[in-house]
Amino acid sequence: VKRPIGLFDSGLGGLSVLIEIRKLLPNESLLYVADSKYCPYGEKDEEFLRRRAGIIGEFLLEEGCKAIVVACNTATAASVGMMRQRFKVPVVAVEPAVKPAAARTRSGVVGVLATRTTLQSEAYAQLLIRHAAGIEVLGADCPDWVAAVERGETGGSAAESLVAERVQPLLARGADTLVLGCTHFPFLRSAIEAAAGAQVTVLDTGEAVARQLQRRLGDLHLIEDAANLPSHRFVTSAPSAHTESFLRAVWPDLADIETFPR
Amino acid sequence: VKRPIGLFDSGLGGLSVLIEIRKLLPNESLLYVADSKYCPYGEKDEEFLRRRAGIIGEFLLEEGCKAIVVACNTATAASVGMMRQRFKVPVVAVEPAVKPAAARTRSGVVGVLATRTTLQSEAYAQLLIRHAAGIEVLGADCPDWVAAVERGETGGSAAESLVAERVQPLLARGADTLVLGCTHFPFLRSAIEAAAGAQVTVLDTGEAVARQLQRRLGDLHLIEDAANLPSHRFVTSAPSAHTESFLRAVWPDLADIETFPR
Repeated sequence: VKRPIGLFDSGLGGLSVLIEIRKLLPNESLLYVADSKYCPYGEKDEEFLRRRAGIIGEFLLEEGCKAIVVACNTATAASVGMMRQRFKVPVVAVEPAVKPAAARTRSGVVGVLATRTTLQSEAYAQLLIRHAAGIEVLGADCPDWVAAVERGETGGSAAESLVAERVQPLLARGADTLVLGCTHFPFLRSAIEAAAGAQVTVLDTGEAVARQLQRRLGDLHLIEDAANLPSHRFVTSAPSAHTESFLRAVWPDLADIETFPR
Repeated sequence: VKRPIGLFDSGLGGLSVLIEIRKLLPNESLLYVADSKYCPYGEKDEEFLRRRAGIIGEFLLEEGCKAIVVACNTATAASVGMMRQRFKVPVVAVEPAVKPAAARTRSGVVGVLATRTTLQSEAYAQLLIRHAAGIEVLGADCPDWVAAVERGETGGSAAESLVAERVQPLLARGADTLVLGCTHFPFLRSAIEAAAGAQVTVLDTGEAVARQLQRRLGDLHLIEDAANLPSHRFVTSAPSAHTESFLRAVWPDLADIETFPR
């Protein structure tokens, strides 16, 4: 039996990371946990999030996963160190693309779109200290963006006005680079780009995370070749009506929706 | 007017750091904030602690402090990155002495005595990843130790049995080095050493923090010489009856107790 790669997120956002991993590592089995019962993570405190990360990580290891991808910025900020300490497989995580943004900005002003918990985390403060010296970084929490993606409202006038409301003030303050600091937000990318205009660069991290995972697995000789017939599983702690149509769009080779009971 | 060094803690524990700073930098004015209204910090969540650190840091800067010493391990784990990001003076903080403990242990087992919030923090998990590879680190939260110190119960049979209860299991599991991961605990050092026995090394960080502060101030040419007549201030968010007798013992040159209203 070939061991899968385990991923998790508060809900469906992490599928933006899964899409990139599937492109780069097409022969891998994937096991995705959506902790939708506790979505959005962005309003929970860090201690709670560490408990959830511990419970989900245990499940992924019991299911034989050879690596864990924390496909959620909020969970990463709260718990990646704990997970690396506790779990003995590679733990790959997502971090807002502040460093590439600082290298790319010409105006010296960068906007970071993320959840409140991420923006208030120690991990985020330390990221700015390391990579944003001399750059003005404007953090914008985006209430309701995660919920909009979970409902499948990723386009149309409602999504556009929701997004424009948070993006406009960043542009008005001179931001020429926007960082998508939540794995849900790539699903709103076209609305964000419409609000920001062509002069503004929009950065996300899905592809970089997929490459990092590829490197880590490569070092350990754990990458599957074309002889492997990959299996795909989706497990959620709270199935909803929207989940199925969302999954059908982004993960067509998925057979069914399982329930995560913990 | 000479600018003071600002320190803060959840209560009186940070005075163990102040004592070391006073030894090394005897000409400095000191302003200590005891956030006793919210003591113990060790049971609060990190977001709350970051809010308090922000409020107290603002106060210290308004009072003209040239540096901030976070004289509390729990506050450090929750907020040192945020404070360094937000405040433009040197921010010196305390971290459990895991690295020196890992270098010193012969049994390969180290005990860390700290608060629950510290032990569950991301910052602590990352500290272990960086400095404790190959070492078994046993974290012991120590409920009631902070409260005992705040009440002035640092010796006698009550303190000894309180301490022994947490220290014994660490010794039974092979620990030969104990780290005091809370600035309150140096006041319990003799009870801890009595419980641990002469074979066990007990490490704290007060002196290292004082030296680090000296280096940072030296680099910025901010150290006072003997021409300065230092002023000493103690400000608390909740004065108690014990405070005065505690202060008289450890900080005899203090004139009065002020109130922190925020």
